Amino acid sequence: MTDRPGEFTLIERYFRPLAQDPGAFGLTDDVAVYAPEHGTDLVFQTDLITAGVHFFVDDPADAIAAKALRVNLSDLAAKGAKPVGYLLSLALGPDWTESWVRDFAAGLAKDQESFGITLLGGDTNRIANGVTVSITAFGTVPAGRIVRRSGAAPGDIVFVSGTIGDAALGLRIRLGTIDALPAGKAADHLLDRYLYPQPRMELAPVVSQLATAALDVSDGLVGDFAHLCRASGVGGEIDATALPLSAGAQRLVEQDATALATVLTGGDDYEVLAAVPEPDADRFAEEAGHAGVAVTRVGRIVAGEGPPVVLGEAGAPLPLDRLSHTHF
Amino acid sequence: MTDRPGEFTLIERYFRPLAQDPGAFGLTDDVAVYAPEHGTDLVFQTDLITAGVHFFVDDPADAIAAKALRVNLSDLAAKGAKPVGYLLSLALGPDWTESWVRDFAAGLAKDQESFGITLLGGDTNRIANGVTVSITAFGTVPAGRIVRRSGAAPGDIVFVSGTIGDAALGLRIRLGTIDALPAGKAADHLLDRYLYPQPRMELAPVVSQLATAALDVSDGLVGDFAHLCRASGVGGEIDATALPLSAGAQRLVEQDATALATVLTGGDDYEVLAAVPEPDADRFAEEAGHAGVAVTRVGRIVAGEGPPVVLGEAGAPLPLDRLSHTHF
Repeated sequence: MTDRPGEFTLIERYFRPLAQDPGAFGLTDDVAVYAPEHGTDLVFQTDLITAGVHFFVDDPADAIAAKALRVNLSDLAAKGAKPVGYLLSLALGPDWTESWVRDFAAGLAKDQESFGITLLGGDTNRIANGVTVSITAFGTVPAGRIVRRSGAAPGDIVFVSGTIGDAALGLRIRLGTIDALPAGKAADHLLDRYLYPQPRMELAPVVSQLATAALDVSDGLVGDFAHLCRASGVGGEIDATALPLSAGAQRLVEQDATALATVLTGGDDYEVLAAVPEPDADRFAEEAGHAGVAVTRVGRIVAGEGPPVVLGEAGAPLPLDRLSHTHF
Repeated sequence: MTDRPGEFTLIERYFRPLAQDPGAFGLTDDVAVYAPEHGTDLVFQTDLITAGVHFFVDDPADAIAAKALRVNLSDLAAKGAKPVGYLLSLALGPDWTESWVRDFAAGLAKDQESFGITLLGGDTNRIANGVTVSITAFGTVPAGRIVRRSGAAPGDIVFVSGTIGDAALGLRIRLGTIDALPAGKAADHLLDRYLYPQPRMELAPVVSQLATAALDVSDGLVGDFAHLCRASGVGGEIDATALPLSAGAQRLVEQDATALATVLTGGDDYEVLAAVPEPDADRFAEEAGHAGVAVTRVGRIVAGEGPPVVLGEAGAPLPLDRLSHTHF
């Protein structure tokens, strides 16, 4: 272990190449500087993920990097923000290896390219066990134009992006709490969606333009929708028969009676849930399509309060033991 | 343990009261918003501290909060920045208690008051062991006016704020690697300085106005000065007989031959080291005094390169085994 590089070498070798923005000073100063454009608001999000809670310690290093970054970017997308950069704290346990750090940095590099963002600063640290990654990401919106959880009104149509339930079902397959699909593309898709969330950055301008309220689905579709309803002072309905499911999720829902609840409440989706006034709904779907993101109508906003009602076959309310997953 | 509150209750009870800024949305949304003032640059700093590495797990919760926040604020001060706000990720191990979280939040509240800053966002998480706190703090400087590590020139006078070595000696007393002082005020001061760094925010405008280069002393006086010299492309000298020492540090240096090296290289000082052109040196000291921060001339910038030379009694170079402490 004595041939592992020190902190400064690690930074120079793997993290400095990620910090090309002049405001990062090549990670050679103590802080980072960002000159905001006049007329923009900054939008901040911070999230910490840690081995054994948010990921498995033996997950690929590039997947841990991707998850750490993307869970933050997903929040920015749902708020209509354009991502700019991030700060990283990486805490490594006693068993860290240089090749792990190399792969982790490669994961960040790939995502920086995909999402048009840059590393602005950060630090590396030791920690007693495992790996912990804390990222603060920020982006911009035109001044005063952030999309809140509040703002949804009765009659609004509720959309979600992509497909729902894949990551939570993928996790159950890994944990062995649901019968695995036969090996193949559909099964791989579920496992992959747990490792590599897909934040919907392309949807941000459409959300910004047309949504009355939005958030990203991270804890669980029903629970996160409940947050939006509470903040907006409204009620909501979800049509469980209208949920966008991947082929693998569809098969699990058909073969296992517990799978639908996982889809509705399992979380780790990192899809956007948005409320859109009914007259704008077609346009929302159309613009989202142009942006390359499929969106699906899954419910509507109604007058009232309390958690959303989930309607199953023939419109019968579907009872749920809980609304979302919590890591806490 | 079943009567411990959930994540949302913890946030509502202890963290929402810290987030009074409108941009924090009372921690009820997914992100925080900050509207920067035109003509300012934002200055970011992030640091993660973790039990068993940066603090003892049984340190008082309010001291852990203070350290987590102040190590970031100290960097902002050294760069001439005015602090604005911060984002917090708190990760709690299996043994967490509500009273610990209450005391932790109380520590943050006290510091928010002292430093004129606000909590803008964050999250609480579980972690396998101990406690980990990650904070991203930001402040502002007039556009283009950040004070860098680079910029020092031969002839500049080198100042440090406050006293040096207290925290590192306090840590050695706790670890039992140095003979403790007799109980009393001087000993308490050293122990206290390890627990509660004192970032020199009042010095920021003076640094901004007069320093050619600056940083905060966190890893160790000599090592951090070496960073400044390298970034500035210059050499440096430190007069070890001129170091500002507290009464307790002075006594330890007199009674233990290893104490001076701890003062010079032990770190955890969170004092400002600044290079100031010789003609401005008196004014720097005077303005610092007006701002309520004592500063002391400890050396100068010279032509050349390589780590700074430390001069002891009668100007003889003092050999050091290492330049700074590393947690890595």
